[in-house]
Amino acid sequence: MRARVLGSAAGGGLPQWNCGCDNCVLVRAGDARVAARTQDSVAVSRGDRWLLVNASPDVHRQIEGFAGLHPWAARHTPIGAIALTNGDLDHVLGLLSLRESQPLVVLSTERVRAGLVERNAMLRTLARSAGQVSWQTLAPGKELVLEDVGVGVTAVPQPGKLPVHLVGLVEPSPEDNVALRIRDLVTSRTVAIATAVGSLDALDPLTRDVAALFFDGTFWSDDELVSLGLGQARARDMAHVPVGGPTGSLAALAGVGIERRVYTHINNTNPMLREDSPERAAVERAGWEIAHDGLEVVV
Amino acid sequence: MRARVLGSAAGGGLPQWNCGCDNCVLVRAGDARVAARTQDSVAVSRGDRWLLVNASPDVHRQIEGFAGLHPWAARHTPIGAIALTNGDLDHVLGLLSLRESQPLVVLSTERVRAGLVERNAMLRTLARSAGQVSWQTLAPGKELVLEDVGVGVTAVPQPGKLPVHLVGLVEPSPEDNVALRIRDLVTSRTVAIATAVGSLDALDPLTRDVAALFFDGTFWSDDELVSLGLGQARARDMAHVPVGGPTGSLAALAGVGIERRVYTHINNTNPMLREDSPERAAVERAGWEIAHDGLEVVV
Repeated sequence: MRARVLGSAAGGGLPQWNCGCDNCVLVRAGDARVAARTQDSVAVSRGDRWLLVNASPDVHRQIEGFAGLHPWAARHTPIGAIALTNGDLDHVLGLLSLRESQPLVVLSTERVRAGLVERNAMLRTLARSAGQVSWQTLAPGKELVLEDVGVGVTAVPQPGKLPVHLVGLVEPSPEDNVALRIRDLVTSRTVAIATAVGSLDALDPLTRDVAALFFDGTFWSDDELVSLGLGQARARDMAHVPVGGPTGSLAALAGVGIERRVYTHINNTNPMLREDSPERAAVERAGWEIAHDGLEVVV
Repeated sequence: MRARVLGSAAGGGLPQWNCGCDNCVLVRAGDARVAARTQDSVAVSRGDRWLLVNASPDVHRQIEGFAGLHPWAARHTPIGAIALTNGDLDHVLGLLSLRESQPLVVLSTERVRAGLVERNAMLRTLARSAGQVSWQTLAPGKELVLEDVGVGVTAVPQPGKLPVHLVGLVEPSPEDNVALRIRDLVTSRTVAIATAVGSLDALDPLTRDVAALFFDGTFWSDDELVSLGLGQARARDMAHVPVGGPTGSLAALAGVGIERRVYTHINNTNPMLREDSPERAAVERAGWEIAHDGLEVVV
């Protein structure tokens, strides 16, 4: 089974359109120490049909940048399904770019589906013809089999938050934010993808017997935006456990026995993006990788 | 005044994600006869603050591709305002990528505003703080002055259609689709931008005394999609007068005395995209240009 990182940045990408932080400035200057990154998405397959994990606003260029996702005919896509891990705009906006009357299979919790379809007339563009989109419900803990992609998908709720645009409209629910276990139907080798993890309390059912883990690398430190003067919110307020520090994920996951451990969904401000940074060195010393667009993990 | 084409393709772009038409295949193969194009948007300025005409789904890479739109500080944008010509997804989705708490000024008709804000919870992401977005109403025929950009903007209704996702929800209105006259406040030189024109009946107030015209180049022929087997809709059904043929815009606008005439919003199937095509030769012989991403018109 192949898991290919289509986009490794958090919402906004790197560079972010209105950001002049050190990393964004270096990327715009073409500095070799920091690579540009599109927004979070991973494609998984064991053949020539693919599951997209999340539909980022950058989905068009992510598809064009990887020949495996190009159409084979005048109207066609090798994308067998799209799974949404939450309703954040950086994970769902791309759905609206996957229109043009193409039949789609979309997997999400019922909560995420309702937050999209029932509250946004725009989603009617995916209902131009009967059966254009087949929504399949990710019920926590219950594997959903995608025969054409060759994988089974199981949602594991993670402490998260409502998308900003739904706060005040609906009550939070454990199904607002999930991680996914994606199992090769032939070998049963499993990849876990968890790019929004608000606390480390629900990791065990997610990481048990996985061959590769893509994990929330949004922020290095809890006060990253505050200390840069770029915002008031702390990492944990935004439902992202930071990577660094004594209570960060790097320390907490030190003993986990997983072959490939990859930080992804990395915010533009995160110092570990710089290849010459001490933070990057600490991550790599611990046996972790930092995702870049195009990174492929085969299990 | 400078008008810079950020994106010259119709909705879907070139190549389009699920399309294997001749042009899309050539672009993917790197053929020099057809250039890739992002979705319709034009940036206009007479200094260092810019008006974006439409917010395409490709807005992030359009900004990164033009240094004039890069931020000058840690949190900043030189985009002074964004004007929407209709509510089609290829013109509005980019608004949702221009979040990150950045104050925005958005110009549209009241109809387009309501179709977005009142029917899509996602738009609440642009209302995280009081006054984050200032909506200014484009009332047909009434110039709206943007002092910081140095231009005045006047909407001229054009025969159009409702966005697909609003059909059946609201009644059509003349304010669903407008062209824009953009006037340099110092010289009064004017650029007209009309990328969705369903018939040629309302051109006079739009094209009078303009120095440059960006015009609907979506389809070459009325049955373009039908004859390629890619759809049932004819160009005029989709509110786009075709370029070619005896009743097309090239023939109808033959006598118009405008210095720079540019076709843009070009669908991936349009044969005039190919630099060696007879359609391209006919357009250029008539004194028109075919827009490409990055084309700049100075008036």
